[in-house]
Amino acid sequence: MNLSMVLYLIGWILACEGTLLLLPAITALLYGETAVWSFLATTALCLAVGIPLVIKKPRNRVFHLKEGFVTTALGWILLSVMGALPFLFTGAISNPVDALFETVSGFTTTGASILKDVEILPKSLLFWRSFTHWIGGMGVLVFLLSLLPLTGGSHVNLMKAESPGPQVEKLVPKVQSTAKILYGIYLGLTALEVILLLAGGMSLFDALTTSFGTAGTGGFGIKNTSMAEYSIYLQVVVTVFMILFGINFNFYFLLLMGKFRKAFFSEEVRCYIGIILITTVIITFNIQGMYESLGHAFQQAAFQVGSIITTTGFSTTDFNLWPEVSKTILVMLMFVGACAGSTGGGIKVSRLVILFKSVNKELHQILHPRSIRKINMDGKTVPHEVVRATNVFMVAYVLVFSLSVLLIGFDDHDLITNFTAVAATLNNIGPGLEMVGPVQNFSLYSDGATCVLIFDMLAGRLELFPLLLLFRKDTWQKF
Amino acid sequence: MNLSMVLYLIGWILACEGTLLLLPAITALLYGETAVWSFLATTALCLAVGIPLVIKKPRNRVFHLKEGFVTTALGWILLSVMGALPFLFTGAISNPVDALFETVSGFTTTGASILKDVEILPKSLLFWRSFTHWIGGMGVLVFLLSLLPLTGGSHVNLMKAESPGPQVEKLVPKVQSTAKILYGIYLGLTALEVILLLAGGMSLFDALTTSFGTAGTGGFGIKNTSMAEYSIYLQVVVTVFMILFGINFNFYFLLLMGKFRKAFFSEEVRCYIGIILITTVIITFNIQGMYESLGHAFQQAAFQVGSIITTTGFSTTDFNLWPEVSKTILVMLMFVGACAGSTGGGIKVSRLVILFKSVNKELHQILHPRSIRKINMDGKTVPHEVVRATNVFMVAYVLVFSLSVLLIGFDDHDLITNFTAVAATLNNIGPGLEMVGPVQNFSLYSDGATCVLIFDMLAGRLELFPLLLLFRKDTWQKF
Repeated sequence: MNLSMVLYLIGWILACEGTLLLLPAITALLYGETAVWSFLATTALCLAVGIPLVIKKPRNRVFHLKEGFVTTALGWILLSVMGALPFLFTGAISNPVDALFETVSGFTTTGASILKDVEILPKSLLFWRSFTHWIGGMGVLVFLLSLLPLTGGSHVNLMKAESPGPQVEKLVPKVQSTAKILYGIYLGLTALEVILLLAGGMSLFDALTTSFGTAGTGGFGIKNTSMAEYSIYLQVVVTVFMILFGINFNFYFLLLMGKFRKAFFSEEVRCYIGIILITTVIITFNIQGMYESLGHAFQQAAFQVGSIITTTGFSTTDFNLWPEVSKTILVMLMFVGACAGSTGGGIKVSRLVILFKSVNKELHQILHPRSIRKINMDGKTVPHEVVRATNVFMVAYVLVFSLSVLLIGFDDHDLITNFTAVAATLNNIGPGLEMVGPVQNFSLYSDGATCVLIFDMLAGRLELFPLLLLFRKDTWQKF
Repeated sequence: MNLSMVLYLIGWILACEGTLLLLPAITALLYGETAVWSFLATTALCLAVGIPLVIKKPRNRVFHLKEGFVTTALGWILLSVMGALPFLFTGAISNPVDALFETVSGFTTTGASILKDVEILPKSLLFWRSFTHWIGGMGVLVFLLSLLPLTGGSHVNLMKAESPGPQVEKLVPKVQSTAKILYGIYLGLTALEVILLLAGGMSLFDALTTSFGTAGTGGFGIKNTSMAEYSIYLQVVVTVFMILFGINFNFYFLLLMGKFRKAFFSEEVRCYIGIILITTVIITFNIQGMYESLGHAFQQAAFQVGSIITTTGFSTTDFNLWPEVSKTILVMLMFVGACAGSTGGGIKVSRLVILFKSVNKELHQILHPRSIRKINMDGKTVPHEVVRATNVFMVAYVLVFSLSVLLIGFDDHDLITNFTAVAATLNNIGPGLEMVGPVQNFSLYSDGATCVLIFDMLAGRLELFPLLLLFRKDTWQKF
């Protein structure tokens, strides 16, 4: 383990966070809030820890996948610990575990909250809360990669560790350029949403925070009722952008390159759109009795489907009151998740496609024992290691899921609450059902259970392995 | 597809069932019940269909894994259809779908019932109900293999298709001898339980039916309160035997051969016992407040843990009223299941061991990318195909599970009921939680949902692939 390189990068992460914290500090200044000091103090702390680490450039620049995973896991943990300080300093949240939950929920783009009333928070804190979604959505390491001219060649390992999906591909040969393109698309789409929301009469503050939440597929609302109070136009804009941010960013890159056929050829994107359409239609008919018109039912269904499958977690209605089929579909969509290479969470559509194909291949193998068949996707063979890693991911996912439900069970809340609380955090969605439903919050859990859910959010965002590696003895050997 | 061979074997299955139906017919005679005619009529039907199929010996004796899977799937479906007739003929159940549910639940050793009151049934029907557990537990094809001197050499494929677990091993080189040994052990253990129950003052009828239910890990009770009314001694005997029947029968074979060290070396058996001990202790402390003494709490916990992990489904208490942690543990045990090569259902301990090791291997691979590591079990390398099939099994399992929960969701019962109903049927357990809890039954579901649950019971017993193959077009090509 090249610890000096790991610490060097963590230093950069903190320095970066310290700088980004100036944005909510400016917001506080603009609104004349005393919270400005809390943000500046946190900035100072971040820089005080980060800069010494950055100054000492490591001699040994060897950087393997192992270092990538450990840097990512530790980086995200420190990022969250520091990011939680403004909540404590301003006194908005008094319990450190709760403050950490709220921040991890932000960075991991979960959007689950322990706050009963968000409307009493200072504007600058609401800004920071939503801004953490935006930072975490595309990833802080990808951001660093776009800025730092890191040499050594193996920095794609950092991207692999942070970016979601079974296969991480560079859009262009250079990692730095890939990261720049990704952030460019990200910024462009976010700006477009802000403009469209402003056009619908939203205030600039609301438009910015809502766009941050949509872009990162996070879901922190700035109102207690999430998106329910906004006009149909604004809800529709958010619906469309949630779905857009759930698409693999390769798709947009191909569009920009003018490769339309190749873009729409993507099995994952077509499958993702297909799932959204089918489930929206089923839910529309299932809930139509609860709304005045079929159109309104469709709009509500589309919003909730888009919000859950992309793991955003905004809501316009209390879907906990919907009929069982609709609730069951939403719970399933919680697991499906968005496309790989998007800002969304969950298992990811491409993983499910690979898994589905591997079941089909196994059945084929039973019928034709002597045939040799590969799993193809988008016309290319999926490498054996990717199929294996995908299968193993699924197993690890089920193990982490089960253990989490068991551990938070000691709080003695009902099983649906616990089950959907884990589903909502491990998949980085936000709301679950029953006592953690869309009009509820996560404050009911004890500190111990909250820690489990914090772990789940991080494990979900970083796709399990980086976090699990931290628990292995041989990760820490041979420094 | 060698259809003539498939039909030949199905003929034998029906002939065999017709003969076995004489046992409940004799019971009916002894108790002077009119049900005797229903059983005799079913026997006649079975023989009328079966004998013509058996007489025509197929010329082409080629028999691949494909034929094994199709024979098993179709054989079990027909077995169940015929076995449901006595329920209809006697009028005990009027709805054919419900009668099929009850019979499939019997043969697949699920033990879920749609009957509100079993105590009003004729004794002979109760006998048949429990006897189906005994037939299904070790498997009707294994039974046939022990009787028929099938030539062709590839009849281990029949055993592979019907016997549970990731790897099916012959105990001795000949399939027929292996089947005989398995049934010998099965019969011996069942007889031992009958004797011990009789020694505890149980009537012969109760002892026989209870032992059938335990041996097959089925769980149909002959009382509405399942095992709650019996003495502590009888409950303890049943607890011990449930756990014994959940152990891989290889273990007993090794014991009989005097290979004690090798028997106890089995990772699966040690893991299985370990899980039972740990979960029983946790539940004991969790529920101790509900019982007068720690000892009684332990006895109740052990019974329920043994009943659920072996997927038997007997109950001595309404565990739906237990605290959440205990309920969560029981729900998880529903999925764990018993050992491979036992009569129990679920995912199977050995599969979980393999899956757990494959996650560990993946983490190892990230840390040491150049190392080559195999998955070992009991000191032997697990073949690559077994690891792959195990991973794929898990994926197929999750897919079937999710689709089932979604489909029965249209009945609009609550999610816990639906979730545990699928868990209880796909894992061949019996009771779930809430409206399908241990003191409830499955009669609340519509015919459509009941059909889904029937499919789940068969898919669970035959471990998915035989049933899934029936839905593939290329299974039916090239006769």
